[in-house]
Amino acid sequence: MSTGPIQCKAAVAWKAGEPLSIETVEVMPPQKGEVRIRLVASGVCHTDAFTLSGEDPEGVFPAILGHEGGGIVESVGEGVTSVEVGDHVIPLYTPECGECKFCKSGKTNLCQKIRETQGKGLMPDGTTRFSVDGKPVYHYMGTSTFSEYTVLPEIALARVNAEAPLEEVCLLGCGVTTGMGAVMNTAKVEEGATVAIFGLGGIGLSAVIGARMAGAGRIIGIDINESKFDLAKKLGATECINPKDYDKPIQEVIVELTDGGVDYSFECIGNVDVMRSALECCHKGWGESVIIGVAGAGQEICTRPFQLVTGRVWRGTAFGGVKGRSELPGYVERYLAGEIPLNDFITHTMPLEEINSAFDLMHEGKSIRSVIHYE
Amino acid sequence: MSTGPIQCKAAVAWKAGEPLSIETVEVMPPQKGEVRIRLVASGVCHTDAFTLSGEDPEGVFPAILGHEGGGIVESVGEGVTSVEVGDHVIPLYTPECGECKFCKSGKTNLCQKIRETQGKGLMPDGTTRFSVDGKPVYHYMGTSTFSEYTVLPEIALARVNAEAPLEEVCLLGCGVTTGMGAVMNTAKVEEGATVAIFGLGGIGLSAVIGARMAGAGRIIGIDINESKFDLAKKLGATECINPKDYDKPIQEVIVELTDGGVDYSFECIGNVDVMRSALECCHKGWGESVIIGVAGAGQEICTRPFQLVTGRVWRGTAFGGVKGRSELPGYVERYLAGEIPLNDFITHTMPLEEINSAFDLMHEGKSIRSVIHYE
Repeated sequence: MSTGPIQCKAAVAWKAGEPLSIETVEVMPPQKGEVRIRLVASGVCHTDAFTLSGEDPEGVFPAILGHEGGGIVESVGEGVTSVEVGDHVIPLYTPECGECKFCKSGKTNLCQKIRETQGKGLMPDGTTRFSVDGKPVYHYMGTSTFSEYTVLPEIALARVNAEAPLEEVCLLGCGVTTGMGAVMNTAKVEEGATVAIFGLGGIGLSAVIGARMAGAGRIIGIDINESKFDLAKKLGATECINPKDYDKPIQEVIVELTDGGVDYSFECIGNVDVMRSALECCHKGWGESVIIGVAGAGQEICTRPFQLVTGRVWRGTAFGGVKGRSELPGYVERYLAGEIPLNDFITHTMPLEEINSAFDLMHEGKSIRSVIHYE
Repeated sequence: MSTGPIQCKAAVAWKAGEPLSIETVEVMPPQKGEVRIRLVASGVCHTDAFTLSGEDPEGVFPAILGHEGGGIVESVGEGVTSVEVGDHVIPLYTPECGECKFCKSGKTNLCQKIRETQGKGLMPDGTTRFSVDGKPVYHYMGTSTFSEYTVLPEIALARVNAEAPLEEVCLLGCGVTTGMGAVMNTAKVEEGATVAIFGLGGIGLSAVIGARMAGAGRIIGIDINESKFDLAKKLGATECINPKDYDKPIQEVIVELTDGGVDYSFECIGNVDVMRSALECCHKGWGESVIIGVAGAGQEICTRPFQLVTGRVWRGTAFGGVKGRSELPGYVERYLAGEIPLNDFITHTMPLEEINSAFDLMHEGKSIRSVIHYE
């Protein structure tokens, strides 16, 4: 356990729209209530690309991106009691303090304890733990997993079973949990339900898994990239359709295919037009649509209010409604029990030095998830 | 019990945008599965005015409007078993057949058994029971309560306690049940919740009653017509605010007033901009907004998807989610028990001949409900 700064490698986003740059960064020791961890692996997610593009209104630079990590506790700051050196942990961009109005509500996982500083790329005390040549570098989503070492508040770490390979369960830090949780926690899909899943990337495929685990009777995958269909079917989709094959709106196609619409739909892309389709393909009287994807700044969703007045429900979800510290360890156990085939999601692995190729593969639609393996 | 046609008075809407005209109409006897009733009273609702204005895409003319009635069974057609001559009944524009996919779902009150013909102003067999000088006149919402006699399918009648004065419980045929049901059935407001109600007309005031019955801790009424505030407070609103008193969006005002937003909001106007305000004044993480008002044809609701992704829920309701035949009799019993002060809603009563003044009073914002008393 070191108590001083650590010099290590990290991928730094110096400015929006530019490739990440591998730098030697200095990582300060954890302060009161904080924990420093050594990353073992990190997935590369669309949200990282979204922020790097400059579209994210909260994006600040220079920053160390990455939010889908798995690591081992290297040192702990004053007062930290829930984790100790050597523990295997998953960083949480949605923390769980257990004390704020949100945590106590019993109605949401959106702990707000450190929201304000996290949104500014800072630790709760308003400072950063990263620097390059003395110049401060911002945190990202409170996690910054594209670094060999990172510092997080204790409330932003889920301690998980050390038997689980961090190279795989790191994916539970964002996409897979988000998709599965949206189905099981947010929508609470029941056995026999008909489900439509728009977008078959990492989130959408995870929603497919969640729907299969929930016992959905019919799971319709929708994507314009048909190369995703085989894996979707392997994971549980009962049919896959390509909107480009039809000359009418996809919501009409689905309503016809399902005798009135689906019981639940999930938007896993971040496209506001698709969000509308997802709502409008729901069954009159009870269909519920859940927005998972993140749209660009300023974009809006629209529909006729009649869609809601006649019984459809429009919701959204963040991190699948999952409370990270209390519920994520259970997801890791389900993975260990063979219920969550994380390996199917990992199409590419690479060292940190090649991280820009992970973004390229994502943009080209060639990867489901690329995972960075640290040495 | 007559088995032939009846000549009686009715207010006929010959065309959109014109006053109603009192005519002698012929009302055919009830056919198989149908019931003819003598109206005792009928409320005049904004939806009647909406259709009369020509804005309603389903509006057909000539028609006999009216959908908030109370009457007594005059005769029954072949096969009718659930009501008999002399029963007191409330017509249901949302029927309850108990057999269709919707009734059987357990998730909605939107019975679709006769939806198609009802939407065209016809009885289930595709014909009409009204005529003036041999010229057919259409039904409206399956109810047509602006007539001394009307014919309805058996599945569109709730049999209610004959001790209840039909001049008051007729209001349970639409507005009051819609507002109360939206709170208690659709949103399921819990004790102690904070509630915002946009629009303090008949529906909004009923939502206030529902919120008070549900034990809401704070009930905020919002209207630009402050003359509604006294009654709203009498019925249970803990405070009333006028958006015109503020120089910022009312959703921001409410979020500040309530330390983050309300737990539930209700739009009781039919204004798509207010629907957005109602959603956006909800608390992050769990706030739910229910659209009750009916917007004009083609109008759309919009918001940033971030509003939903951060935990707000957007719903709608029709007839308050209430199943008319099985649940409305219970509302009548609650009225008889003194729990629903229907009398407070009735600001004006008049004979059928003066029905056009009821529309004038409504448009001038001078009435909550006008009730037509038949002789």
